[in-house]
Amino acid sequence: MNKQQNILIIGAGLCGSLLALRLGQRGYNVTLMEMRPDLRKVDISVGRSINLALSDRGIKAMQLVGLEEKVKPLCIPMNGRMLHDLEGNTVLAPYSGREHEYINSISRGLLNGLLLDEAEKHDNVVIHFNKKCESVDFESTTALFTDTETNKPFVEDADIIIATDGAGSAMRNSYYLGKKFLFSFSQDWLSHGYKELCFLPNENGDYKTYTNALHIWGREAFMLIALPNLDGSFTVTLFLSFDEGEYNFNNLTTKERVLEFFSKYFKDALELMPNLVDDFFENPTSPLGTVKCSPWHYKGNTLLMGDAAHAIVPFYGQGMNASFEDVTEFDKILDQGHPDWETVFKAYEKSRKKDTDAIADLAIDNFHEMKGHVNHANFREKRTLEMAFEKNFPNEYSSKYSLVTFNEDVSYRDAMLRGRAQDKAILNMLSDGDITTVNNLTNDQLRNTLDKVKTATEAILEDDRIAGLK
Amino acid sequence: MNKQQNILIIGAGLCGSLLALRLGQRGYNVTLMEMRPDLRKVDISVGRSINLALSDRGIKAMQLVGLEEKVKPLCIPMNGRMLHDLEGNTVLAPYSGREHEYINSISRGLLNGLLLDEAEKHDNVVIHFNKKCESVDFESTTALFTDTETNKPFVEDADIIIATDGAGSAMRNSYYLGKKFLFSFSQDWLSHGYKELCFLPNENGDYKTYTNALHIWGREAFMLIALPNLDGSFTVTLFLSFDEGEYNFNNLTTKERVLEFFSKYFKDALELMPNLVDDFFENPTSPLGTVKCSPWHYKGNTLLMGDAAHAIVPFYGQGMNASFEDVTEFDKILDQGHPDWETVFKAYEKSRKKDTDAIADLAIDNFHEMKGHVNHANFREKRTLEMAFEKNFPNEYSSKYSLVTFNEDVSYRDAMLRGRAQDKAILNMLSDGDITTVNNLTNDQLRNTLDKVKTATEAILEDDRIAGLK
Repeated sequence: MNKQQNILIIGAGLCGSLLALRLGQRGYNVTLMEMRPDLRKVDISVGRSINLALSDRGIKAMQLVGLEEKVKPLCIPMNGRMLHDLEGNTVLAPYSGREHEYINSISRGLLNGLLLDEAEKHDNVVIHFNKKCESVDFESTTALFTDTETNKPFVEDADIIIATDGAGSAMRNSYYLGKKFLFSFSQDWLSHGYKELCFLPNENGDYKTYTNALHIWGREAFMLIALPNLDGSFTVTLFLSFDEGEYNFNNLTTKERVLEFFSKYFKDALELMPNLVDDFFENPTSPLGTVKCSPWHYKGNTLLMGDAAHAIVPFYGQGMNASFEDVTEFDKILDQGHPDWETVFKAYEKSRKKDTDAIADLAIDNFHEMKGHVNHANFREKRTLEMAFEKNFPNEYSSKYSLVTFNEDVSYRDAMLRGRAQDKAILNMLSDGDITTVNNLTNDQLRNTLDKVKTATEAILEDDRIAGLK
Repeated sequence: MNKQQNILIIGAGLCGSLLALRLGQRGYNVTLMEMRPDLRKVDISVGRSINLALSDRGIKAMQLVGLEEKVKPLCIPMNGRMLHDLEGNTVLAPYSGREHEYINSISRGLLNGLLLDEAEKHDNVVIHFNKKCESVDFESTTALFTDTETNKPFVEDADIIIATDGAGSAMRNSYYLGKKFLFSFSQDWLSHGYKELCFLPNENGDYKTYTNALHIWGREAFMLIALPNLDGSFTVTLFLSFDEGEYNFNNLTTKERVLEFFSKYFKDALELMPNLVDDFFENPTSPLGTVKCSPWHYKGNTLLMGDAAHAIVPFYGQGMNASFEDVTEFDKILDQGHPDWETVFKAYEKSRKKDTDAIADLAIDNFHEMKGHVNHANFREKRTLEMAFEKNFPNEYSSKYSLVTFNEDVSYRDAMLRGRAQDKAILNMLSDGDITTVNNLTNDQLRNTLDKVKTATEAILEDDRIAGLK
């Protein structure tokens, strides 16, 4: 296809700026339009998730655009979950039995800024800020914008339009409201919302608690988490029901009640948050939703990518990684040399959608896992066993978490199917007494246990295959 | 709650007219508004599904309102699926091994007319036709209508509004567009659409093919079905992809091509349809979609019911039955004597939504079953075995189909979980050679096989329970 083609990208968030960079590297003429001011010049982080977990699928995309080394200094490794109980006791539950496998806390703003800097280095990439997309005419391949500084509307024409404008995508809304084709669409809200809080650095500028972990205070009905930032602070997030249970966002309306709630359930965290009450009432409460849709494209004119196509809840730490992987996968399809954009878009959606559907479902599963299962005995036994498998037989076993997070060459869907089957096999064998926990097992016994798990996993996958008549 | 309350029902289709009748019987003041003309006076059936399968859940609702005897003469029993192969060979696959279990073909128009007649007998029920709902203000509990005869808008006030205005519900649209609360919503379109055709009666006014069956020409990628009408005709429906495969709705554009398609795949049906070409080009092609949403209610003001809350694809023959069951279940909640409408609506959704979600998913499963699985050897062996179980041990076994269709006291969700587990057990045991097909089995051997199936089913349910950490 002609490299002189003009590609309009709507939304210069993480996915849009990476896509602009990559398409710029490939030689296309790229115009990138962003609703907000330039985040490198104005602090616009309030109320958005300000740090994120970068893992192997995201890093693979950074390698694709040659940014791995520039991203590394922005990363704080997190080796596991630091679980905090009601009394403030902690235990570190590693993410993997292989030491080189960890996730990274990274600042959304710094990473996005880096991607914009790199994209701008290409003469064929132009970025405009303060341009809000109102709607897209996908039949004429034009988009209507408002310049938010002058409040004036204007229309932008392009050969193709790719919308990376996030969970509330204006282009996706045009697909839905246009009723020009059968557009399958879902938005599913959790009963829980979230609010960002903060552990500030101590007086020496140091971290107030253990740095290299994702801290979790899981309380079944709700939870608090904390991820480290480069400046010594932690971003803390409360996940809580809007209106159910004794304490919820709707009834935490006074200083006294907020303090009562935190001292009852998050005592050790509260001690690190003298700033709690101010943060609680200043910061917004936001909903958590999953968006799926299809088709992602209209003919060869327009395409949805990133959160615009598949917004997910944050509990697997895969939102950004999935959007970055979109770019990797799209790039792979471009390499296949299809004759026109419609064929490219179709091939991309066909190969990609099953995987973004899978990570959306896995992220919901992990919400329940993080809130409560991490505290259950059978879940902990399973994790202990899996850590031993990964440590002692590193080439033979990966847990569901590892498959999703550290195996960028296993698709999300395959990770989901195998991971769920493994979980089912282990939980059932533990329950039936067919296998025991790792304590005092010799290496031969562990080997034998792994073989049992593998056999049971294959049997589960085969039974499902037969029942599905596939 | 005060019986003098004014209830506005939007939509006088099957669900709305049954609901008006039942709430009228309970003494409420009911106003029922319908967009279309009175179907008892004007033929408005074109393009809508003109016959339906009434089964036990629907009949239970007819019993609730005292109409069972009046509905019976409208019913044509269908005892099984009449499967037609490419050569025109047929085999009758019964729906159940118990002779008294069958489904009924019934005319949508006659049944709806009966419900309207019965509702109108109550002085406290008023029905208005040609009143199209445009939107609902769920905060003030008012609805905006257009009188389609005068084209004049008007606003209707009520104590509560219940929308039974179908898959394209105006009130559900107001929930979605209003953005006043977190509204989870999905619309999922199948790749296939449908078109209604017809076998006319023969010159003597008799049925051209076997009356007491649902005829199926399953061809994997598409299918044709036929249900009998009281006048000797059959309503025939073609389910076909819009744009995939050698033959699809988008490329069946000439008389020659339509005849070629039918003579290749539905030869024996084509012989009964000299009217095929005219019907094909006169009748519309319609999409098939599933709609789910939540919450169904806004506070104690408004409630969605029937297809407005949960539209499903037609392949389990449960769309009408599920909507009728909505009324039965709502009536049961009213009997519980809750203090206010908000509590009633909450209790209703809490008990009901899991079941309408289940039948939506089961209906998608059955699309694949009807198109293709009915022709597969392992599927047929499973059905043969299940028929033998039902016939010989009528109190001990019900297939998934029977649980859904003939066991009105088993919830859809329980039917789905148990039915799927049974299917999985049987298909896997057949595949592994653990059980054999029914041919030449003694009664003891059949008994033994049933016990194996029961044990395996319980094990599957238990394994899933453990894996789900429930």
